[in-house]
Amino acid sequence: MTDPHPRPIFARLTIVGLGLIGSSLARRARQDRLAAEIVAWDASEQVRARVAELGIVDRVADDAREAATGADCVVLCVPVGAMAQAASGLLPHMHAGAILTDVGSTKQSVIRELLPLLPDGVRLVPAHPLAGTEYSGPDSGFSTLFDGRWTLLTPLEDGDPAAAAQIASLWQGCGAMTQEMDAAHHDRVLAIVSHLPHLLAFTICGTADDLEGESRSEVLQFAASGFRDFTRIAASDPVMWRDVFLNNRDALLEMLARFTEDAQAMARAIRWGDDAFIVDRIERGRRIRQSLIDLNQA
Amino acid sequence: MTDPHPRPIFARLTIVGLGLIGSSLARRARQDRLAAEIVAWDASEQVRARVAELGIVDRVADDAREAATGADCVVLCVPVGAMAQAASGLLPHMHAGAILTDVGSTKQSVIRELLPLLPDGVRLVPAHPLAGTEYSGPDSGFSTLFDGRWTLLTPLEDGDPAAAAQIASLWQGCGAMTQEMDAAHHDRVLAIVSHLPHLLAFTICGTADDLEGESRSEVLQFAASGFRDFTRIAASDPVMWRDVFLNNRDALLEMLARFTEDAQAMARAIRWGDDAFIVDRIERGRRIRQSLIDLNQA
Repeated sequence: MTDPHPRPIFARLTIVGLGLIGSSLARRARQDRLAAEIVAWDASEQVRARVAELGIVDRVADDAREAATGADCVVLCVPVGAMAQAASGLLPHMHAGAILTDVGSTKQSVIRELLPLLPDGVRLVPAHPLAGTEYSGPDSGFSTLFDGRWTLLTPLEDGDPAAAAQIASLWQGCGAMTQEMDAAHHDRVLAIVSHLPHLLAFTICGTADDLEGESRSEVLQFAASGFRDFTRIAASDPVMWRDVFLNNRDALLEMLARFTEDAQAMARAIRWGDDAFIVDRIERGRRIRQSLIDLNQA
Repeated sequence: MTDPHPRPIFARLTIVGLGLIGSSLARRARQDRLAAEIVAWDASEQVRARVAELGIVDRVADDAREAATGADCVVLCVPVGAMAQAASGLLPHMHAGAILTDVGSTKQSVIRELLPLLPDGVRLVPAHPLAGTEYSGPDSGFSTLFDGRWTLLTPLEDGDPAAAAQIASLWQGCGAMTQEMDAAHHDRVLAIVSHLPHLLAFTICGTADDLEGESRSEVLQFAASGFRDFTRIAASDPVMWRDVFLNNRDALLEMLARFTEDAQAMARAIRWGDDAFIVDRIERGRRIRQSLIDLNQA
């Protein structure tokens, strides 16, 4: 099959926010020549200086205006709570026909905030690469981060399919598999596969941190499998996660409510010695794990 | 320093229950000649046959009597709910001066059940190696499982310190670090570092499994970091974990209650947009992760 988007896919790709995701995208786009020119912009002067030092892009812009001017595609790689502010500085300088896309972990909130800001002719393609590590910042990125991972696209109903196809092509160029999904549905699925697990991981760290003196230090000393895995999840970027929680509030609170009911049912089974219930719950965990292995997602 | 327990530590070491832990202990004990003779016994005929086939012990006993007779040390590596039954078949055949020890994840329940069965002269040393994987059975064990991990000993107040020292030496011989701890305290610490994380992991798998049709399949397809890590924890052995939950009920339910209060506080902060509270919780997670890294427990 002929690739409908031969490389470079874009003449000028501007990446805004050079954290783990943005700097990984920059590295991969450059390595595989997904754009003829790759421009970086970050609100932090320190990050801009570091990106220039790392030499992972063709040019670091001096301001938002320079970053947006002449770009075929601008990718917002900032926390979801910072999307609107980042976009508002860029959009007035984008030309008609250019594409604005993002990598935010919540999609309804990003669409709700960006849509009113969109000038005529700029095409919005919301996207979300399901990839990450516990590290953040421009030094933490690497070009293979997206290999074999999904990127979900949540194009607008009246959006331009050609623009969505180009963004899909960009992520496929980064090694990702892509799939389109309704934004509300995306937010629900992500609430359970990502946002709730992070909430639980942050919470158990707090619960352990509140233990009385000796127990607290022993929790750290004897951190066993289980707690250790939770702390790895809990090491993620605070601002990013605060924004995710606040911007996917309804879906997350609903999933937490379901989870809490289920945890209480488990507590009741433990209190009253309901063997069958407990074993059934544990075996469901094993089956789901097996399904993931079968799907190559483990 | 001269090792107070030169190898072999025991003339005859009998391992009862050849799952992940028991078969790892057998492999390491044989590799490093921690006992002159290593005997295996498992209630399952299939496991006994497989252990003989694997050739990881010197001899597989035909019955509990043969397993116990002449052993200097018997290590119970069965789920905590099966300890009493396993011990009752062995103890009548153990000689005075022999040591009975175990690897159970709950220590108060094991002591409560084994103590009344103990014949005069047999010395009980409860122990718990903090090591494991998501796999079970005699094939899953490996000789380095305990390297650099803790084994907690919870010796009885009127127990024999020489016996405890020999068991510490056995686990040190397996590569573990050892520490003595009060049994009740052990159960509290383990409730938060291991039992509660497992309960949460099993529960979230159930919550996901209960989702309506399309979402359920998409949870599997798009299992992101977070959920994926939880399913790894949730793949553990059902009987072992049912027994742990039922045998550390009080400490586990208390930790779950504390956790639930903390999760509800987080939910409230998300609902009302309390940025500072959310960020504080996330940063505590990061600090705890950093402490683990500093302690080489990550």
